[in-house]
This record gives sequence, structure tokens and C-alpha cells, in this order.
Amino acid sequence: MPTATHTGQRIGLVLFPRLTQLDLTAPYEVFARVPGATVELVGAARGPVQSEFGLTLHATAARDEIDALDVVCVPGGPGIGALLADGAWLDWLARIGGSASWVTSVCTGALVLGAAGLLDGYRATTHWLSLDLLPLCGAIPTAGRVVRDRNRITGGGVTAGLDFALTLAGLFVGDRAAQQIQLLVEYQPEPPYPVGLEHYASEVAALRAERAALQAERARLVVAARQRR
Amino acid sequence: MPTATHTGQRIGLVLFPRLTQLDLTAPYEVFARVPGATVELVGAARGPVQSEFGLTLHATAARDEIDALDVVCVPGGPGIGALLADGAWLDWLARIGGSASWVTSVCTGALVLGAAGLLDGYRATTHWLSLDLLPLCGAIPTAGRVVRDRNRITGGGVTAGLDFALTLAGLFVGDRAAQQIQLLVEYQPEPPYPVGLEHYASEVAALRAERAALQAERARLVVAARQRR
Repeated sequence: MPTATHTGQRIGLVLFPRLTQLDLTAPYEVFARVPGATVELVGAARGPVQSEFGLTLHATAARDEIDALDVVCVPGGPGIGALLADGAWLDWLARIGGSASWVTSVCTGALVLGAAGLLDGYRATTHWLSLDLLPLCGAIPTAGRVVRDRNRITGGGVTAGLDFALTLAGLFVGDRAAQQIQLLVEYQPEPPYPVGLEHYASEVAALRAERAALQAERARLVVAARQRR
Repeated sequence: MPTATHTGQRIGLVLFPRLTQLDLTAPYEVFARVPGATVELVGAARGPVQSEFGLTLHATAARDEIDALDVVCVPGGPGIGALLADGAWLDWLARIGGSASWVTSVCTGALVLGAAGLLDGYRATTHWLSLDLLPLCGAIPTAGRVVRDRNRITGGGVTAGLDFALTLAGLFVGDRAAQQIQLLVEYQPEPPYPVGLEHYASEVAALRAERAALQAERARLVVAARQRR
């Protein structure tokens, strides 16, 4: 079992085409500042990977080079569709996740964890547009910016990766060191618009309608992935 | 003069070695979602650039390929030291900034704008550790997450890039479209620790002491850059 404070964490952020880059780069900024931690961007192969809107990131390790991680973290984005249908990724996640101290995700990365069988019976969160898909993953959907259930820690959509990573940093190195990271990345947010879905009922309804086909396809992929396992 | 709402913005984010990658990747995530906008990562040359902790980003355009931008944005990080001493970068910024609709920065990128002579007489902000250097740039230091003075918009440290970019998005495409971006990146932050320097007096003092030599060197570089112009 993970202990409350320890260093030397080996953290692997899963990198795949068409991910939402901020799902990865926001936690990276925090994890890279955790004393003693090493952070790998784990791709199907080493090398460049293009994110959702074109920004290119570099996988620093190939999946097959990684036998174990203290923390595995799956970001989300449109590219999860391909991951949900990719047996090699799901097998790797199931194996690495089975021995990792912390099994984590940001945004719709939770659906990938769930497709790999890693969220069965766990409370979890994801991007608000996908929360209703979590039961298909065997997870208990739980609204929240950061949801922890035993050694599963899932973050909400995109920018929740900051709250998620600072929470995890606190578990690794204690509150004092994590507070210093929060201070250095000047995380004292002031969103320019009101916060909370309740302020945007018509936008929320429009986005749900616009995404209905995509979400139905994700549901199908999650169910198919779990049937194959 | 910039108008209140318009699309087709060409946005250039300056990319340089040892930048703080989240200073760039957080605004990128917002700007890439602005309808009609194109976002370039502008480097000294096209190709890979390594950020502060090793994450590699790719310059999509070389500085010399860019004659004009609607928005120029300089992120910060340890790598600004080299920029402050780099006449080619400062000349380019002075030229592009002279015709851009919006001249902007995140974090200590403000010191680079100032070294290029772009903040003289403007209110501006930067990372809290560097706010006291702004007068050396001819700027009027102004505490704030996002500070706008005419067509200069500067953001505070690192994560302030989110508030900064959403504010700018609202100016480009109006509040409704910017609110939709805020909703899609689920920006309803819940920092795990109390927010505000006042909660961390001893940490703040320790960080200021630890960074004193670095800050003195930055001051020297800013003054030298402005004397050369």
C-alpha cells in the first residue's frame, strides 16, 4: 500500500495521438516539480505524437520499455477512441495498473482506465460530458474535481489536471512541499466567467446534443473493450 | 485599434529553450479552441525545443518566417535569461510587437517584452517573484491575475495563462464563445491548498531569498538590454 509521504516516484503519463494536450501538460508541470520524481511520457513508441489541435509532444519512453510505474496517469481527448479499441494499450494498462501504487486519469482518460478493467467498483470522475459513461466501465460516477477511492485518483476535465496533480503531489511529498509547488505555479485562479455548469444550461444542452454521436460511439467502444477482456 | 470581437486571429506563442512549458501550453489549449484562430509556436528555428524540466515542444514557425501577428505572446521561465541577452529575439519582438493588435505575456515573459521596449508606461503584471523587476522595464507593476492596459495584456505566473487566454478569447470572439471554451476545458478550479501569498509568508520569504541571485542577474540583463536599444 502507498504510504503518506515518499519520494523517488516514477510517474508515467500516457501519450497518444489526438490527446487533449493540457490533460497531460498541466499535471506534468506539477509532477516535474515534485522532489525526487521522474516523469516519463509513455507512447506506443518513442518520438513525436500530435495532440488534438496539432501541438506535438515527444514520448520519452516506449510502452514496451516500461515494466512498472509508481503512478500511471491516462489523459483524455478525442484520441481515446483509438485507445479504447487498442488491445495492446489496454493490456499494458491492465498490467502496469495492476502493480502501480496509484492508478490515475485526467478527463476522459478515466474511460480508458475503465476499459482496461481498472475502475471496477471504484468511485471515479471524468469530463462532465462523459460522466454518464462511467457505469459502463464498472465505475461509480462521482461528480468532483478530484476523486480518490483507495489508490485510484481521477480528475475532471482538462484543467482539473492541476487540482489532481497538486493533490497527488501532497500525497507524495507532504502538504508543505506541494503548497510550495502551488505557490511557484501561482495557482490562484480567477476564471473570467462564472464557474459551474448551472450557469450555462443552454450551452450544456447544446454541447450534449452536438456530442451525442461521439458519446454513443465511446459507449460502444467501452462495452466492446470490456467484453474482450 | 483592435475591435471588441473579430475572428481569424493569427496568434504567435514564442517558444525558446528552458521556458516553463505550462506558460505556453495553457494558453495554447484555449487559443486553439478560438473559432478561426491559428496558433503558431514561433521559435528561433523550426523544430524541437526543450522546456525547463525536459518536455519537448515543436516550433511550427521560425521567427524569420513571421512578418506580422495579430497577437504575440511571450511565456516565461528560466530560459528568459538567454532571451534578455539575445538581440535578434528582442529586435524581432520590437518589430512584431510594434504592429500587433495585442502584445501579451504570461509569467516572466513580461520581462522580455519590457527588455524589447514594449512595456514603457504600461501597467503590467508577471510572476509574483518578479513583479519588482517591472519598473526596470519601464512598466508600472500591477498585481493581478490578468492586467490589461490599452493593447498590452499580461498574465501572472504560470497557471495565470488560463485566465489570461480566456480573457483574450472573450475579446476576440465575444463572451459567449469564450464561456463555451471555459466550459469545455472545465475551468472550475479547486486548488487543494489556500490561495494567496499571505498564507505562505515563510515560504515566500524563503523563495525570495533562494532566488535573489537569479533575480539580480535578470535585473542586470533587463537594464543592459534596454541600454542597447
